[in-house]
Amino acid sequence: MAVNLPPLGELHAVPGVSLGTACAGIKRRTRDDLALFAFEPDTTCGGVFTRSGFRAAPVFVAEQHLAQQTVRAFIVNSGNANAATGARGVADARSCCRAVASALGIEEVSVLPFSTGVIGEPLPMERFLGGIPRTVELLRPDGWAAAAHAIMTTDTVPKALSHVIPIDGRVVTFTGIAKGAGMIRPDMATMLAFVATDAVVAKPLLQSLVRRAAERSFNRITVDGDTSTNDAFVVAATGKAGHQSIEAPDDPRADAVLEALCSVAETLAQWIVRDAEGATKFVTVRIEGGRSPGECLQVAYTIAQSPLVKTALFASDPNWGRFCMAIGRAGILDLAPEQVSLFLDDVCVAERGKIAASYTEAAGARVMAQPEFTVRVNLGRGTARESIWTSDLSYDYVKINAEYRT
Amino acid sequence: MAVNLPPLGELHAVPGVSLGTACAGIKRRTRDDLALFAFEPDTTCGGVFTRSGFRAAPVFVAEQHLAQQTVRAFIVNSGNANAATGARGVADARSCCRAVASALGIEEVSVLPFSTGVIGEPLPMERFLGGIPRTVELLRPDGWAAAAHAIMTTDTVPKALSHVIPIDGRVVTFTGIAKGAGMIRPDMATMLAFVATDAVVAKPLLQSLVRRAAERSFNRITVDGDTSTNDAFVVAATGKAGHQSIEAPDDPRADAVLEALCSVAETLAQWIVRDAEGATKFVTVRIEGGRSPGECLQVAYTIAQSPLVKTALFASDPNWGRFCMAIGRAGILDLAPEQVSLFLDDVCVAERGKIAASYTEAAGARVMAQPEFTVRVNLGRGTARESIWTSDLSYDYVKINAEYRT
Repeated sequence: MAVNLPPLGELHAVPGVSLGTACAGIKRRTRDDLALFAFEPDTTCGGVFTRSGFRAAPVFVAEQHLAQQTVRAFIVNSGNANAATGARGVADARSCCRAVASALGIEEVSVLPFSTGVIGEPLPMERFLGGIPRTVELLRPDGWAAAAHAIMTTDTVPKALSHVIPIDGRVVTFTGIAKGAGMIRPDMATMLAFVATDAVVAKPLLQSLVRRAAERSFNRITVDGDTSTNDAFVVAATGKAGHQSIEAPDDPRADAVLEALCSVAETLAQWIVRDAEGATKFVTVRIEGGRSPGECLQVAYTIAQSPLVKTALFASDPNWGRFCMAIGRAGILDLAPEQVSLFLDDVCVAERGKIAASYTEAAGARVMAQPEFTVRVNLGRGTARESIWTSDLSYDYVKINAEYRT
Repeated sequence: MAVNLPPLGELHAVPGVSLGTACAGIKRRTRDDLALFAFEPDTTCGGVFTRSGFRAAPVFVAEQHLAQQTVRAFIVNSGNANAATGARGVADARSCCRAVASALGIEEVSVLPFSTGVIGEPLPMERFLGGIPRTVELLRPDGWAAAAHAIMTTDTVPKALSHVIPIDGRVVTFTGIAKGAGMIRPDMATMLAFVATDAVVAKPLLQSLVRRAAERSFNRITVDGDTSTNDAFVVAATGKAGHQSIEAPDDPRADAVLEALCSVAETLAQWIVRDAEGATKFVTVRIEGGRSPGECLQVAYTIAQSPLVKTALFASDPNWGRFCMAIGRAGILDLAPEQVSLFLDDVCVAERGKIAASYTEAAGARVMAQPEFTVRVNLGRGTARESIWTSDLSYDYVKINAEYRT
């Protein structure tokens, strides 16, 4: 059901990064479920993690390790989220790091663990640890596509891309992979994204760039508002491009890196929505004329997460009433309905709080029948604007989430 | 699909109240869609209205009239919400009040208008006004069941009940009606509830009792979080019971009135959830061990409105992971997952943040297979507790909301 998702394009190896995968049989024995990323020394790393109050054990350990040490490896498994597993989950995540560290001859705290899959069940440690030697054996620079496959849960397609920019006359590569069908599967509850580059970026700057890129990409998507326990977006910069290190936020090269990161992260984030479970539509919700970016996002998320709006998107029903309802309940206390306008792509549905004289249902339905379109609301009270991306709510969403598990 | 909804029981007339209904053909010509409530002089009235930023015209007018004057009549229509209709909507709502006032020989501002139905279309005024004489002609004390029918939109059953209490040795009656399938139909987007009593209650006290009763009933239900533009809960007290007026909040008789109001309002609120579109389950979500009622409600609503939890309810799937996810994203920053427990009725699913040793999936599934059960979460951080009522997310929810309209 994925909406306009392209097949995997060419993936460029990133100097200083090698990847290996294996089938450890964590959930099923039929496909790879472990991915190991190994980074050469002097790689810097930045990451953002779920803000869930019920954070998974690997999120806790990864964040702790990231703060302490230079990162040398990521170990990622699908099939089990190692979330809601108590103290045992943390000990298990550490054991995985220790096993990887010992196989690679590096320190335990230089390994970041990531997990995605069923919540609430302990990791099958014997199988997990048994799979690690194979991932080490297979480490290779061109392992990106295999890794994109290994981290999938019920994603229908692997998600990976490369982006290349010049810095100081050198070619610098950004390659990233992601998994997740939009946080809409709590059994598999995770959005994970990994990007590596050979750019030379100091760790504090990289961390701030990662945060800003997340804000413009993964923090701008929603399928059902159900934030997972394991979300993580991590960027490693190996420094192998050999240009002079980028350290200052006002270095124009920092902007170039940010734009490249955003380009990769936005595409991966949009692909997650395109592959959302049951999705038949990919919809941009754009709010303009707000007093602040915050209130624009508030309205955008209320629209994008309203089950009534989402069923109207599924039905290609240009239901002005449902948009009013969602805008009305978005929590803007002094909203002036008589200033609000709504557009579907370029069709003006409503202006100044009521149906536009020029509007016809046929014109609205024509826009909504497309697999991709933009819902644009002007709040008429300021100059702030924000966009997010979302999917619809279909029978298949209910089917997948009612029938899926165990 | 209504879950354990009883047929209409005996409805007691309320001295001082008469009701008339008519088919004005606002949306269809096959059933009554207008209900008129007429109150004798000296009736006091209190009401609470939607907090939507996109409030419907009749909500605006009703609230204004309620503040100004003694209330003598309600005029309620189904089929059209008169919401998102701009200045014309307000003028139309006032015209309806004027027509009723003129027919009854009372003042325009003593009439409160209420509408429910499609949002964004102007009221068909000619048909509306044409129906009013018939409602006046049919005014009678035992018109409650007919009124409960007339205000239905896509409700599958009418919702009405009576409750009787003694005050100062006199029998005092409370009779109420409500409509709505849980705010889940924005085309029909409204929850409306009307209760009348012959108790003698001063207006300021009544207003505060209505607010408190709403807090314990209609403000404790959610189907999909989609608050409507037209919600209203209004109580009229005719004073015909003739006991001494209840005016002070600390009068024990005020508590008796509050309990009676709550009893009627809670039942009506629960019936709305039982009749939620596509509902196959009626679920109480009870949060205990919170630091404040507010944080208990935050967690309760996040669970009750999570599409992933709701599809698990539909599937009778005791999916601990989905509850963790919802508790985790409820916005409690310093939540300690290792203190959290989950019960399905009396079955302990998880304690101290992980699956209980005694728990079996079969035991959890047995509870969830019932049409009614309680999800109970203990946050382990305080003594506050709150309960709300909700329904599940089924294929029929999508079907009804994707296929319904125009």
